[in-house]
Amino acid sequence: MTQAPGAASVTSALLVIGDEILSGRTKDKNIGHIAERLTEIGADLKEVRVVPDVEADIVDALNALRHRYTYVFTTGGIGPTHDDITADAVAKAFGVSIDVDPRAKAMLLQFIAEKDLNESRLRMARIPAGADLIVNPVSKAPGFRLGNVFVMAGVPTIMHAMLEAVLPLLTTGARMLSETVLANAREGDIAAPLRAIAEHYPDVSIGSYPFMSETGPNTNLVVRSRDPERLALARDAVAAMVAALPPR
Amino acid sequence: MTQAPGAASVTSALLVIGDEILSGRTKDKNIGHIAERLTEIGADLKEVRVVPDVEADIVDALNALRHRYTYVFTTGGIGPTHDDITADAVAKAFGVSIDVDPRAKAMLLQFIAEKDLNESRLRMARIPAGADLIVNPVSKAPGFRLGNVFVMAGVPTIMHAMLEAVLPLLTTGARMLSETVLANAREGDIAAPLRAIAEHYPDVSIGSYPFMSETGPNTNLVVRSRDPERLALARDAVAAMVAALPPR
Repeated sequence: MTQAPGAASVTSALLVIGDEILSGRTKDKNIGHIAERLTEIGADLKEVRVVPDVEADIVDALNALRHRYTYVFTTGGIGPTHDDITADAVAKAFGVSIDVDPRAKAMLLQFIAEKDLNESRLRMARIPAGADLIVNPVSKAPGFRLGNVFVMAGVPTIMHAMLEAVLPLLTTGARMLSETVLANAREGDIAAPLRAIAEHYPDVSIGSYPFMSETGPNTNLVVRSRDPERLALARDAVAAMVAALPPR
Repeated sequence: MTQAPGAASVTSALLVIGDEILSGRTKDKNIGHIAERLTEIGADLKEVRVVPDVEADIVDALNALRHRYTYVFTTGGIGPTHDDITADAVAKAFGVSIDVDPRAKAMLLQFIAEKDLNESRLRMARIPAGADLIVNPVSKAPGFRLGNVFVMAGVPTIMHAMLEAVLPLLTTGARMLSETVLANAREGDIAAPLRAIAEHYPDVSIGSYPFMSETGPNTNLVVRSRDPERLALARDAVAAMVAALPPR
């Protein structure tokens, strides 16, 4: 990965494509994984959209996201069947042509015998003009990169491999660092002093996440900053506030 | 639920609010559940967006969604801490005022002793003008409905209870019915006849979902329609196509 100059912020969006996610039939497992990996490398995920297998919806969402964020990742809709329309939608969004790509066809032939490479399977080699391919070590049918958009499979094992192939290509920003302080208190009991700390450190993001522990309601306080010194100061302030709480 | 007249289509969108989902720290468990329930009652989920705890982002997404879909559901950001800004953002999106609501305060007092109802906890009773409350049987702090927008908690147990309280209030459309046919084939081997069936039944949605089974790659074919007769015809066509496949 190339580090962006200065503390320039690098942002990402994710577009999940598929009727099966919106019907609830398939439970998405990709959002959390992609979010985690992009945070780890400093290309923070800022927005996710899930849209159906409808060309106009994919085109509109893609055009909204690709102009707003440094990178856009898509998952889903790159298989051989009639409902796999992502590649065509991406070509349309960019206003470029799309056709069978010889490099992609060669990749398919590593996995599929020539006699089995029927018209439907050949659809998986349709790549918008000007795109770079993303290798698929699992089942060979590639994803692709066009401009700032990375088109990946929806099947999690394949998506994981494609994402790892793609991440080293990104220019990333300073990584968002994070520390968690367990409050041992209910959210409502620490909200006022926590707000005071958040106002004292406006450049540090401080989140409060209640959860039910074995001993009753508890709260994780998550302090985040790209600057390790500011992070340490804000974390220490939160920890001191927690330490000063009356016993439960 | 009230059935919408004729086969009028009722649509929903979901707005997930929270930095913790976008950082990957918390893995969303709400999208799949809400998708499933809305499909079951016939208020199909058509779009999901995940946005950070940033007022402008919440307002923009809410205004985009509420004008496009019959209903919008939100999850997250209605607790007592400084990063819980959903209620204020919803008020801003609708251009209405927001203040402590006596009904909501009374609900909080069922769960929180008056001496513990500090300013932070009282924030959970801030409700936009004109909203109806959504009861929270778990921890009392209510959600609310304003126009076509339903504002719910992000904690899954609370969100589940709020959703069940809300669903009977909706006007729903004809339910999308679904049948699954196991192909016992690779996607690329059935793509051509499947496309022919999909073209013969343009009013029926036919999806193809590959997965890895114990005996190798397999495919679920999902046929969906609001019309039971059309569904049965298309499903029979898919099943007949599968039955006619050569043995693997």
